[in-house]
Amino acid sequence: MPIDAKAAVASLKDLRALTADENGAQRLAWSHTWLKARNWFQGKLRELAVEHHLDAAGNSWTTLAGDSPKTLILGSHLDSVPNGGWLDGALGVLAAFAVLRRISDEYNGKPPITIRLVDWADEEGARFGRSLFGSSAFAGTHSIDQDRARTDAGGKRLEDALAECGVSIDSIGDAQQERKNAAAYLELHIEQGPILEAMSIPLAAVLGTKGVERHAITFRGQEAHSGSTPMKARRDALAAAAKLALEIRPIASRHPDAVCTMGSLKTFPGIVTAVVGRCEATLDQRDLDAAVLAQMYREAKEKSIQFAQEEGCTVVWSRIWNIAPEPFHPALIQLCEESIREVAGQTHRMPSGPLHDAAEVSRSGIPTVMMFVQSLHGISHNKIEDTREDHLELAITAFDRLASKTMQWIQAS
Amino acid sequence: MPIDAKAAVASLKDLRALTADENGAQRLAWSHTWLKARNWFQGKLRELAVEHHLDAAGNSWTTLAGDSPKTLILGSHLDSVPNGGWLDGALGVLAAFAVLRRISDEYNGKPPITIRLVDWADEEGARFGRSLFGSSAFAGTHSIDQDRARTDAGGKRLEDALAECGVSIDSIGDAQQERKNAAAYLELHIEQGPILEAMSIPLAAVLGTKGVERHAITFRGQEAHSGSTPMKARRDALAAAAKLALEIRPIASRHPDAVCTMGSLKTFPGIVTAVVGRCEATLDQRDLDAAVLAQMYREAKEKSIQFAQEEGCTVVWSRIWNIAPEPFHPALIQLCEESIREVAGQTHRMPSGPLHDAAEVSRSGIPTVMMFVQSLHGISHNKIEDTREDHLELAITAFDRLASKTMQWIQAS
Repeated sequence: MPIDAKAAVASLKDLRALTADENGAQRLAWSHTWLKARNWFQGKLRELAVEHHLDAAGNSWTTLAGDSPKTLILGSHLDSVPNGGWLDGALGVLAAFAVLRRISDEYNGKPPITIRLVDWADEEGARFGRSLFGSSAFAGTHSIDQDRARTDAGGKRLEDALAECGVSIDSIGDAQQERKNAAAYLELHIEQGPILEAMSIPLAAVLGTKGVERHAITFRGQEAHSGSTPMKARRDALAAAAKLALEIRPIASRHPDAVCTMGSLKTFPGIVTAVVGRCEATLDQRDLDAAVLAQMYREAKEKSIQFAQEEGCTVVWSRIWNIAPEPFHPALIQLCEESIREVAGQTHRMPSGPLHDAAEVSRSGIPTVMMFVQSLHGISHNKIEDTREDHLELAITAFDRLASKTMQWIQAS
Repeated sequence: MPIDAKAAVASLKDLRALTADENGAQRLAWSHTWLKARNWFQGKLRELAVEHHLDAAGNSWTTLAGDSPKTLILGSHLDSVPNGGWLDGALGVLAAFAVLRRISDEYNGKPPITIRLVDWADEEGARFGRSLFGSSAFAGTHSIDQDRARTDAGGKRLEDALAECGVSIDSIGDAQQERKNAAAYLELHIEQGPILEAMSIPLAAVLGTKGVERHAITFRGQEAHSGSTPMKARRDALAAAAKLALEIRPIASRHPDAVCTMGSLKTFPGIVTAVVGRCEATLDQRDLDAAVLAQMYREAKEKSIQFAQEEGCTVVWSRIWNIAPEPFHPALIQLCEESIREVAGQTHRMPSGPLHDAAEVSRSGIPTVMMFVQSLHGISHNKIEDTREDHLELAITAFDRLASKTMQWIQAS
C-alpha cells in the first residue's frame, strides 16, 4: 500500500497557513501558536484509531497498538524558532503521521508491532535557551536544577511557562516511562545545510549528530587612545581575537566534516577612537568524532594563548556548553541507505551538524537513525527555508520504506 | 619675575575636588558641573584687572589689554569627557591663568601687547559627538546644519542644550570676531600617549595635529548555521573583517608616526550558532603627512576589497569624518623647543595624534604651537590619567617662558 506523500505535503502547507505570518513560522514552544499547532495536529488523529497523551515533559505521544508491544517510534517536533521555516521539525512530524496512517490502513489498525508517533516538546530552545527539552527528559539527561532559573526575554520563568502548559518542571523525568518497549527511533528532517544541494542528491542517511564544544573566549589587552598610542605600544585585544577568528579555519579544515565558527565578537569600549581593551568572542566546534573534537578544542586553546602572548594580552576560556558526538545505529543507517537507494537511486552518508531530538533518543540506548532531505540554499531558521516539493515527496516515500524495513528488523531481532 | 607653578598645580587640585567624583572628572560640556567649573574659574579672575566675556559660541575670553592691540592668546578647555581625568584641558587653562597673572604682575597690569586667555567650549564633543565645537566656530569651520540635529543619549538636542547655556546655534559663527588682532596661540596639554614616558623626557614641542580618516566599513557575507554549513561553503563576514583588523597594522607601520585603529567591530546576527552574515567595523587612521594619510586610506580600502572577494563577501565604506593634518608654525615650534631646553635640558618633537582646539586656531591662519607634558602610562580620558607633579611644574614654567618668547616674537614682527 503506497503512502500518500502529496497529502503529507498538503498538510505541511495547512500548518504553515495556520501558524506562520509574513515573517515566517511562529510555533515557539510553550506559546499560544505552538498550542494551536498541536491542537490542529490532534484533530488529524481523529481520523485514526489511536491513543494519544502528553507525557510528563509535554511530549505528545500517539500510539497505534500492534500485536507485539515492541515499539517503533517515529517523530520530530512541531515547535519552531521565531520567524522560522515551514519544514524544520514539522516535516518529520507530518511524514510520521503519513507513515502511521499508511501502516494503520495496511494492517487494518493492528500492525504486527506497536507504532508510536512523538512530537517532542521544545526542541529548539529558542525562548529559554534550552534545546532538546522534551527529548532530554525522555532520555533522562535533562537538567532541572540548571533549567529552573531560566527566563525568556520578557523575564518569564521556564518553570511558569511550563506550568501554563500543564507541565510541572519537577516531574519531567517521568517522561522516561515512555521508553518502555522502544525498539527503534526514526526521524526525517531537512538537512539545514548546503551539502546535498551542492551534490545534487535529494536524500542522505545520517551517521549521527556531531559533538559540540561551545566556549566564550575573552581577550584582555589595554584600552588606549587611537591617536596617541604608537602601533608598537599597543596591546590590542581585537588583534588577538582576529588571529583566532582566522586560525579556527585551518584547525577545522584538517578534518573532512569538522566545523569551527566564531559567531559573535564584541569589542570594548568599542568606540572608533580607542584601541580595543577587551574582546569577547564565542567559539562553536563540531565533529562526529570525539577525538577530532577534543583535538580541535586543544588546538584552538593553544593558539589563543599564543596569540594573546603575541599581542600582550591575556585570554580566558569559559565553557558555555558541550555535548558528546552521538553516532547512530549501524544497522539502521544501512536500512536508511537501502530505502533511499530504492526510492531515489543515489544516496549519501553524512553527519548532522545541527543537534536533533534523535541524538537524545540514541543516547538513551534506543537504536536510532535519521534521514535528511536536501535544503535549498542551505538556509533554515528563516522564512525562506525551503525544499523542492518533489524532494519532499521522495523523502516521505523513502522514510515510509525505512519504517517498513525497521519494522521487519525489530520483528526479526 | 618667576611664575608660581605650584599655585597652578594647587588650583588644578581645587578644580578636581570641585568637579570630580569617584569615577573621575565630570565636566561634560553644557552640563551643570561644567558651568560650575567655569564659575569657579571666573571667581579666580577677580584677583586680576581683566575683562571677561563669553563669545557667540560659548567660548570664555579673558583679556588683559596691553599697549599694543596685537594679541597673544593662551588657552585650552575646562570641559572633560564623562569619568575623565584631572589634567586633560584643565592643565592648559590653569597654566594659562598662571602665565596671565605673572605677566599682569610683571607689567603692573599693562603688558606691551594684549594677552588673552580662552577656555574653549566643548572641545571633547563627548555628549553630542561634535569635537572642537567652540574653536571651530572661532575658526569659521563650524557646521551648523549638520550639528543642529545632533542629540545626546537622552534625546536632548544640541541646539536646546546650547540655548540653556545662552548660546544660539545660528549665531555661533559670530565667534570669529574674536580672531581680531590675534598674533599667536599657545596651548599646553598632556601628551595622552606613552611616547615621552618611554623616552624619559618630560616635555615636547608639538609639530602639528595629525589628519584623521574615520570610516565605517561593512562586510556582508551569508548568515548560516554553524553546525550544517561546511567550512568551504561559508561566506564569513567576520573572516574578511578579521583580515582587515590585522592588515591595518603593516599599513600603519610603514610610516614612523602613523596609526591605524579598528576600535569597534560588531557581528550580526552575533550568536554562537551562526556564521557571521554581516560585520560592521570602524577604522581610524592618522598621520601628520596628508600624503601618508591618503596612501593608508587607499591601501586599507584596496585590501578590504581583496579580503571581501577572498571570503565571498561584499564591502561598503562610509566616511564617518575626516580632517586634514594641521602643521604648527615653524617659528613657534622653534621657540617652544628653546623654552623646553632651557627649563628641562632635553626636548623632543612629535606630532599630536589626538585633536586639539589648537588645530582649529592654526587652520584659521593664526600662528600656533602646542607644548606636551609627559603622561603616566599613556592613559587619558580616564580617572587614572596622571602626570608627575614635578613634570607639571616644569611644564608650567616652560610654557611661561614660551609665552615670553612669543610676546617678543610678536613685538618684533
